[in-house]
Amino acid sequence: MLYLVKMTVNLPHDMPATQADQIKAREKEYSQELQRQGKWQQLHRIVGEYANYSVFDVDSHDELHTILSGLPLFPYMQMQVTPLAHHPSSIR
Amino acid sequence: MLYLVKMTVNLPHDMPATQADQIKAREKEYSQELQRQGKWQQLHRIVGEYANYSVFDVDSHDELHTILSGLPLFPYMQMQVTPLAHHPSSIR
Amino acid sequence: MLYLVKMTVNLPHDMPATQADQIKAREKEYSQELQRQGKWQQLHRIVGEYANYSVFDVDSHDELHTILSGLPLFPYMQMQVTPLAHHPSSIR
Amino acid sequence: MLYLVKMTVNLPHDMPATQADQIKAREKEYSQELQRQGKWQQLHRIVGEYANYSVFDVDSHDELHTILSGLPLFPYMQMQVTPLAHHPSSIR
Amino acid sequence: MLYLVKMTVNLPHDMPATQADQIKAREKEYSQELQRQGKWQQLHRIVGEYANYSVFDVDSHDELHTILSGLPLFPYMQMQVTPLAHHPSSIR
Amino acid sequence: MLYLVKMTVNLPHDMPATQADQIKAREKEYSQELQRQGKWQQLHRIVGEYANYSVFDVDSHDELHTILSGLPLFPYMQMQVTPLAHHPSSIR
Amino acid sequence: MLYLVKMTVNLPHDMPATQADQIKAREKEYSQELQRQGKWQQLHRIVGEYANYSVFDVDSHDELHTILSGLPLFPYMQMQVTPLAHHPSSIR
Amino acid sequence: MLYLVKMTVNLPHDMPATQADQIKAREKEYSQELQRQGKWQQLHRIVGEYANYSVFDVDSHDELHTILSGLPLFPYMQMQVTPLAHHPSSIR
Amino acid sequence: MLYLVKMTVNLPHDMPATQADQIKAREKEYSQELQRQGKWQQLHRIVGEYANYSVFDVDSHDELHTILSGLPLFPYMQMQVTPLAHHPSSIR
Amino acid sequence: MLYLVKMTVNLPHDMPATQADQIKAREKEYSQELQRQGKWQQLHRIVGEYANYSVFDVDSHDELHTILSGLPLFPYMQMQVTPLAHHPSSIR
Repeated sequence: MLYLVKMTVNLPHDMPATQADQIKAREKEYSQELQRQGKWQQLHRIVGEYANYSVFDVDSHDELHTILSGLPLFPYMQMQVTPLAHHPSSIR
Repeated sequence: MLYLVKMTVNLPHDMPATQADQIKAREKEYSQELQRQGKWQQLHRIVGEYANYSVFDVDSHDELHTILSGLPLFPYMQMQVTPLAHHPSSIR
Repeated sequence: MLYLVKMTVNLPHDMPATQADQIKAREKEYSQELQRQGKWQQLHRIVGEYANYSVFDVDSHDELHTILSGLPLFPYMQMQVTPLAHHPSSIR
Repeated sequence: MLYLVKMTVNLPHDMPATQADQIKAREKEYSQELQRQGKWQQLHRIVGEYANYSVFDVDSHDELHTILSGLPLFPYMQMQVTPLAHHPSSIR
Repeated sequence: MLYLVKMTVNLPHDMPATQADQIKAREKEYSQELQRQGKWQQLHRIVGEYANYSVFDVDSHDELHTILSGLPLFPYMQMQVTPLAHHPSSIR
Repeated sequence: MLYLVKMTVNLPHDMPATQADQIKAREKEYSQELQRQGKWQQLHRIVGEYANYSVFDVDSHDELHTILSGLPLFPYMQMQVTPLAHHPSSIR
Repeated sequence: MLYLVKMTVNLPHDMPATQADQIKAREKEYSQELQRQGKWQQLHRIVGEYANYSVFDVDSHDELHTILSGLPLFPYMQMQVTPLAHHPSSIR
Repeated sequence: MLYLVKMTVNLPHDMPATQADQIKAREKEYSQELQRQGKWQQLHRIVGEYANYSVFDVDSHDELHTILSGLPLFPYMQMQVTPLAHHPSSIR
Repeated sequence: MLYLVKMTVNLPHDMPATQADQIKAREKEYSQELQRQGKWQQLHRIVGEYANYSVFDVDSHDELHTILSGLPLFPYMQMQVTPLAHHPSSIR
Repeated sequence: MLYLVKMTVNLPHDMPATQADQIKAREKEYSQELQRQGKWQQLHRIVGEYANYSVFDVDSHDELHTILSGLPLFPYMQMQVTPLAHHPSSIR
C-alpha cells in the first residue's frame, strides 16, 4: 500500500555540527537500506526547504510507523502522512 | 524536472450529471494520453477526497502550466504545485 | 487496519427537503450495513456540528476509499483520514 | 460520556534521555491503570507523529480535566478535546 | 456541566426576508424557553458579527447536541463547542 | 461592559518549579481579589489545556488592559479578547 | 473608547447593479453622518481590497454593535473588532 | 515605489462564456496599457493557478488602488499587496 | 502616505530585566521622537496583548522600512504592514 | 525559468553579534555574485520584516535548490518557492 509522507526537519541551532552530521549519516544509511528493500519507494527534496516528499510501499500502518519513528532524525521532524489509493484514471 | 501537484476538485452541486460525466470522460482521456507520453508520471487518489496527488516530469514551468490549465476540470480545481529536486540520500 | 475519519456534511441550502431526506435514508442504510460487517467500527456525532468521527477497520486504502466515495452524502462531504497504528501503551 | 482527545507531545530536545524515559514510564503506568478502569477507552498512535487519538469515557468535564492534567507528559502536550454524542445511524 | 459555544450564522443572501424573519422568531422563542429553564445560561452578541457566545449548563453531550441541532437556525450555523471545567482559582 | 478573554499559558520548561509556583500563587491571589470585586466575573478551565475562558465586567478598554497586563503570568500568556454586546434574545 | 474595525465586503455576484448602488449610497450617507458626529473617527481603504480599516470612538460595546449591525452592507460584511487601549509611549 | 501583488481570480461557474471572455479581453487591454506605461512592471502566471504575481511601480497607495480596483476582473479577485523596499544586498 | 502597522513583541523569557528595560526605554524615546515629527501618527495598545496598532505617515516604503527596522525592539517583533488609501466615503 | 522565492530569516536571539555579522557578510557576497551572474534576478526587502521576495532565473529545480541551500543564512530561513510561467497578457 502507498503512503505519501512529507517530512520537515528542524534541527536545534545549538546542536554541535559533529552530532548533526552523525545523525544525518545514520539517517542516510537507514533510508537507503529501506530504498533497496523497495519499501521507501521515492525520496524527493522539496526545493528551498530542509524537507522531503517520500512515497512508502508497506503492508500496514504499524509497519510505516515503525519505519518513520525509527528514523534517526524523527525527534526533529514534523510529518504529514497521506494514504494513497488507486486512481481510476491511472494507467499503472 | 519533477513537480508534485495536489489537485482538489469541487464540481458545482447544480451541474447536470451528464455534463459532469462528459467533463470527467474528457479529463480521463486527457490524463491518460499524458501518462502514456511519460509526462504525467504518477496519479494517486487521496483516500476520502475528490482529489489526487500527481507527479509530472516536464521540461519547464510553462509546459506544466499549459498541461494543467488545459485540464477539462481545471475551472473546478484548486492546485498546489511543489517543485521537487534530487535528494542526496536517494538511490535513484 | 484502523483509520480515523472526520466527515463534515454541507448540504446545499436550496436542496429540496425530500431529496435530502432520501439521501440521508440511503446513507443510514449504507452505514449500518458496513457497521454490521464490522468495517465501520465506530460512528460518533461531533457535538454541535453536522459532522462525525468514525473509525474504520478495513484491509487497504483502496477498500476504504471505495467505501467512503460510495457514501450517498460523499459529494457533500469534507473528510480528514488519519491512519492509526498500535500504541505501545495500549492494553488492547 | 465520550470525549475524543488528540494529544501531541513535544519534549524539549535538551531534556536528558533518562529524565524523558522516567516520565514516559510513569505516563504508561498512569494510562494503563485508567485503561483497566475503562475510563481511557481507546488509545491509538497517529502514524508518523509523536501523538495519539484517545477516547475517554468519564462522567464530567472536571473528571476528564483532572485525568488529562495529571498526565506526567501534560506539560509537554498540546490537546484537542471533542465531546462526542450518540449518532442517530450508529447501531451501537 | 458547562459548555461554551460560539455560534456564527450565515443566512443565504437569496432567502426571502419573510422566511428569514420567521426562522429568527422561532429561534428567539426556542432560545428564551431554554434560558428560562436555566439550560441556556448565557447568551452574548459578539460585537460586529452575526454570531454569539453562549454558555450551556446541561447534563450530557447528547442533551447539548439535541438542543443545538434543534435550533431553527442550525442549518445556517457554524459552531465551536468547548467543554469548561472548574478552575482552581475560581471563587465560585 | 463585558469582555470574553481566552488566556493560554506557556511557561518555559526550564523555569524552576519554585519560581513557577510563586508566580501561580500570586496569580491566584490577584485573580481572586478581582473576582471578589466583581470585575473578573467568570473563570473557567478549558478542558485538557493550561488555558481559561474568563468574562470581565469593567468600564473601559484601558481598565481591562491594566488588569490583564498586570497578571503575574502575563509574560507567559497569549490572549484573545472579544467584546460582548447585549443579545436581543437574551432574557437577562 | 477606541475600536479598530476591519470590514471586508463580499457582495453576491448576481446582485443587480442598481440594487448594489442603492445599498452603497445608503452606506455612504450612514457612514458620513457618523463621521460628522465624531463616532466614526477614521475610514481608510485597504489597498487592493473591497475592505476598510476604521476607527470608532464610542461609549460601549452595545453602541458599536448597534452602529455596525445597522450598516446597509452589514449582511455582506465580515468584521474583525479590536479594542484599543492607550499606549504608554503615545504622546497623545 | 514597488508593490508585489498576488491576484487570484474566481469567476462564478454560472457566468456565460461570452461574458467571461469579454471581461478577460478588457482586462488584457487594461493591463497591457499599464505595462506599456511602465506602471505594471511585471506580470507572471502562478503555475497551476488562475492567479498571477505582478510588480507595480507607482507613486502612491491611492494610485495603486485606483489601478487595481479599476481592473475589469476586480470584483472576482482576491488580492495580497506587499510593499517592497530596497534590499541592502541588491546590486540594482 | 498612510500605513497601518501591527507590531507584536516577543521578548525572550531569559533576557535579564535590566536589558529589557533599557531596550524599552530606547524604544519609547525613538517612537516619541517620530511621533513629534508627525511620521508616527498613531500608536494604540491592543488590549490584552504586548502588541500595538500604529499608523505611519511617510513618503515611501524605504522610509517606513528604515524607521521600522531601526526600532530597538525590531529583532523581537513580528509586523504586518498594510498600505492605506483614501476611502471614497471618508469626509477627511 | 523564473521562480519567486519568499525568504524569512529568524536568527536565534542568543547568537553573538559578531557571528551574525559574519554570516550576513558572507550572505551578501554570495547573493551579489549570483546577481551579477543574472541568476538572482531580483531582491526586494519586505517592508517591516527581516524577509525578502526574490526572483531567480535558473535552468532547473536542482540548480535552484543548490543555490538556496548554499545560502549562509539557509539554516535560519523559512522559504516559499513559487514557479512562475509566462502570462498570456504580459507584453514581455
